[in-house]
Amino acid sequence: MPEAIAYAIGSATGSFSRTTIQRREPGPTEVLFDIVFAGICHSDIHTARGEWGPAIYPLVPGHELAGVVRQVGSEVTKFAVGDRVGVGCFVDSCGSCEQCEAGLEQFCEGEGGTIWTYNCLGRDGLPTAGGYSTCITVEQDYVLRIPDSIPLDQAAPLLCAGITLYSPLKHWQAGPGKRVAIVGMGGLGHMGVRIAAAMGAEVAVISQTMSKEADGRKFGATEYYATSEPDTYKKLRKSFDLIVSTVSGDLDLNKLLGCVKVDGTLVDVGLPEHPVPLRVSMLTSARRSLAGSQIGGIAETQEMLDFCAEHGLAAQVEVISGEDINEAYDKVVASKVRYRYVIDTATF
Amino acid sequence: MPEAIAYAIGSATGSFSRTTIQRREPGPTEVLFDIVFAGICHSDIHTARGEWGPAIYPLVPGHELAGVVRQVGSEVTKFAVGDRVGVGCFVDSCGSCEQCEAGLEQFCEGEGGTIWTYNCLGRDGLPTAGGYSTCITVEQDYVLRIPDSIPLDQAAPLLCAGITLYSPLKHWQAGPGKRVAIVGMGGLGHMGVRIAAAMGAEVAVISQTMSKEADGRKFGATEYYATSEPDTYKKLRKSFDLIVSTVSGDLDLNKLLGCVKVDGTLVDVGLPEHPVPLRVSMLTSARRSLAGSQIGGIAETQEMLDFCAEHGLAAQVEVISGEDINEAYDKVVASKVRYRYVIDTATF
Repeated sequence: MPEAIAYAIGSATGSFSRTTIQRREPGPTEVLFDIVFAGICHSDIHTARGEWGPAIYPLVPGHELAGVVRQVGSEVTKFAVGDRVGVGCFVDSCGSCEQCEAGLEQFCEGEGGTIWTYNCLGRDGLPTAGGYSTCITVEQDYVLRIPDSIPLDQAAPLLCAGITLYSPLKHWQAGPGKRVAIVGMGGLGHMGVRIAAAMGAEVAVISQTMSKEADGRKFGATEYYATSEPDTYKKLRKSFDLIVSTVSGDLDLNKLLGCVKVDGTLVDVGLPEHPVPLRVSMLTSARRSLAGSQIGGIAETQEMLDFCAEHGLAAQVEVISGEDINEAYDKVVASKVRYRYVIDTATF
Repeated sequence: MPEAIAYAIGSATGSFSRTTIQRREPGPTEVLFDIVFAGICHSDIHTARGEWGPAIYPLVPGHELAGVVRQVGSEVTKFAVGDRVGVGCFVDSCGSCEQCEAGLEQFCEGEGGTIWTYNCLGRDGLPTAGGYSTCITVEQDYVLRIPDSIPLDQAAPLLCAGITLYSPLKHWQAGPGKRVAIVGMGGLGHMGVRIAAAMGAEVAVISQTMSKEADGRKFGATEYYATSEPDTYKKLRKSFDLIVSTVSGDLDLNKLLGCVKVDGTLVDVGLPEHPVPLRVSMLTSARRSLAGSQIGGIAETQEMLDFCAEHGLAAQVEVISGEDINEAYDKVVASKVRYRYVIDTATF
């Protein structure tokens, strides 16, 4: 059985250390690939630290995997050894329910539902283990092709951060003539600005402070606002057709809703940890919608990767070694990363 | 100047008593009509009792007015003396902003915004006074035509309760092949069941208890559920394309969201008094939307009245006298009305 070197955490209050895990021999339709880079997503931190409920320990997080195919099963038709590939937040689903058939595998309603890349039980009943490792075996239908023009380190975060923004921007029709605001300029937000701008929308950033304004404008925003300035929400009243909030900390959704035009939508992808107090009148008074979105399906993720290649987009990353993971977690929480940490598995 | 006998309340803790108010002589494009019936809406109670903030006292509520034209201004083209007419929640708007031009006068963004039928300042700077009165003068563009087949007492509640349900049911495409739930079987809810069924949707009622089940089925529901039964929310998980909640009391929107299918919508028209704690994961985990809707524009209100006439729909009412208003308020709050009180102004 293929062995992987991995970084695992043993408990919600523990820290990451180097270990070895087993991967499956690829079955007939499976692909074994060498993970070259793995992004660190804020979700990894929430899960590892037990903030979203008890996790399965020891835990190997990571759902932004980019690498190169090492071996393929006998019936694999989609990939060959040496192909540049990636895996995102899930590695399997039933494949036959209404949602899977609609290309929304992330909402699989089959038995067992979507099989997440880590902190989940696979169909073999064993815990899944994610991208902080040197290789992984995955069913070919859940593997993405990374276009040649995107460097693997910059491609890894597209598998979660990229699709998490691309999907709602497309679903709620960001494009020419639409005013779109991206809330939060972190790993998710900076991709949102780039993608929304490439879609042709007029893009504003709403951040806590003005500190990342220059970057925001470089990424494609034409306006930049700080929630720390007292008149921001007043100034932005009924300004946007679509707002996508990437903030996972506490945030006043009511004030953000006030910035949405009549018939506009505020989409949350940041998934705040605590319930948020919602004033329903913020919805009724302008027929606004508050929606949620969660990554995207396999076909749409491939479409996003191709879109990024076509428009010359990728994530802005800082490459770190396995030993840096613990420190990197604290820096992500403190918003000190520009804009995504990517772990180089050659350092394991 | 035309005089109206009215029922007014003097303070948030006061009670209604008979009084006399002045109405305008109709201007060139205005209509003066005799109010024959006025519905009692829960909003009247919230406003009169100061539950939505301080009201302008003395207050004459009522935004479900049905009557007969007494006099028209010299340039009135739409109505003639003797016509059966109605007025809903607003009596004026700027007429030229983006929303007014789109037929969404209820979201008027002009100076002063939508002029509500009561508890608002009119363009003349004087407080507006609503339907608990014997006549009113209104700009012809804000007057609706009541089809001959709908009795005036049963027509009055359509002007608020009817349009409040018709508009979201149409906007979010209730119709054949769609599973729709109406939450709450009161004045709003019973119209929602009738309208959604007439639109061809499969309609369920979600009520506090099963006590109104027979009525719900008579109105067109094919399923009826009680939130008092412990397994209701579990049984209804991911069951509906569209849920419209008419409940103004405290309600767990998270549990209701769990009953919405992937890509479905929960629309709130009940406007709970307090902020509701929202678990954002209920949105993200199935790309659900939580939306709000507020009555409808003039053209859509006329369309709703014509739709009701075509399908033989109207409100189920209990006619009361002016002296009964105080008692009626308590009964509405206690959900004892079947299904809308309508005041007969001949009793004033």
